[in-house]
Amino acid sequence: MVRQVRAVRTRQALIQAAAEAFAHDGYARASLPAISRRAGVSAGALHFHFPSKDALAGEIESAAARTVDEMAERFRSTGGSALGMLVAAIRQLVVAFAADPVVRAGFALSGDPTRDGGAVVVDSWHGWVREMAGQAQDAGELTDGVSPECVAMAVVAATVGFEVLGSRDPDWLSNERMLEFWTSLLPRLAAAPGRTVEAAASRPPVAAG
Amino acid sequence: MVRQVRAVRTRQALIQAAAEAFAHDGYARASLPAISRRAGVSAGALHFHFPSKDALAGEIESAAARTVDEMAERFRSTGGSALGMLVAAIRQLVVAFAADPVVRAGFALSGDPTRDGGAVVVDSWHGWVREMAGQAQDAGELTDGVSPECVAMAVVAATVGFEVLGSRDPDWLSNERMLEFWTSLLPRLAAAPGRTVEAAASRPPVAAG
Repeated sequence: MVRQVRAVRTRQALIQAAAEAFAHDGYARASLPAISRRAGVSAGALHFHFPSKDALAGEIESAAARTVDEMAERFRSTGGSALGMLVAAIRQLVVAFAADPVVRAGFALSGDPTRDGGAVVVDSWHGWVREMAGQAQDAGELTDGVSPECVAMAVVAATVGFEVLGSRDPDWLSNERMLEFWTSLLPRLAAAPGRTVEAAASRPPVAAG
Repeated sequence: MVRQVRAVRTRQALIQAAAEAFAHDGYARASLPAISRRAGVSAGALHFHFPSKDALAGEIESAAARTVDEMAERFRSTGGSALGMLVAAIRQLVVAFAADPVVRAGFALSGDPTRDGGAVVVDSWHGWVREMAGQAQDAGELTDGVSPECVAMAVVAATVGFEVLGSRDPDWLSNERMLEFWTSLLPRLAAAPGRTVEAAASRPPVAAG
């Protein structure tokens, strides 16, 4: 039992250390010895849990996708305006870029040309955003002439861009910037700019559950 | 004289080959032997022009920044609505992501975690976009409550995101998608949605000069 707990902790430490290394140094430059040192575990322990750097990156991509899916699910279950939920989820994701190395690394690996993986996190995020934008349209929340596909494109491109820009300059991910961004821009897409969207934009992000 | 012309051609071939390699494989994975092979020149010729991979990447970053600056300058000199110029320049930039490996690589290197360079292209682009958004505000073209800083953030994050997403799936850079994107979204930021912005969004991109 004690051994199992220790194994889970070692695995978690390796995932965190690898996420930081992948996001900071890029997939190609991140080295397994540096990751095991950073996690405070032996090279043997790393290889016991993850046979390769590819396996480690794959685990981070899956974990990031799970976190994003769970976050999206939490927002869905709060009900309310679909456009409001969308804004709140985007803000939460940008907070996660600054606070959760695994989510950050999941997005970073999706766009890292030195990593030939899929883009599972981005695809999953795109799917959810598209769905919410569709619900917003069905509920008459989108202003005329704005399609759900375009809202989804804009949101996904901007979130991917924020992750990239934030890795050079953390100011891109600051709460003040995000607040200014959304209170200024998103109400323009709403059919009746008003309470729902602005309230979602100015509400502090939900604590991770 | 013949020797000079040949040297210029060799240099250009190396820059193009390196740009393709950096954007496709990432900075860390792109190798000098593969770049000289792709350019059809000897390793010695590569080293004669560029003493290191860092020098080659720096040259591409500068060349991309020059191209983006020239493009921006061309749009500025056409006069007309600042918001319209902004939309037209963004579309032109996305066309360049698909058509000009040097511009593409300049943006890709800015966000590549395996490249510890500056982000000269993105910074230069951000400066120009911010200036145009400021002009749009001064001319009363921006709708109330939308700040030029926010317009610039949205535009820069989205363009960086489009480059990243387009490198996985070229459909993100297609003309149809861009047209749909801008005709749908940008007029929402305009104080008087109408001719100028929609005309700029639907006009085919200007041919490179």
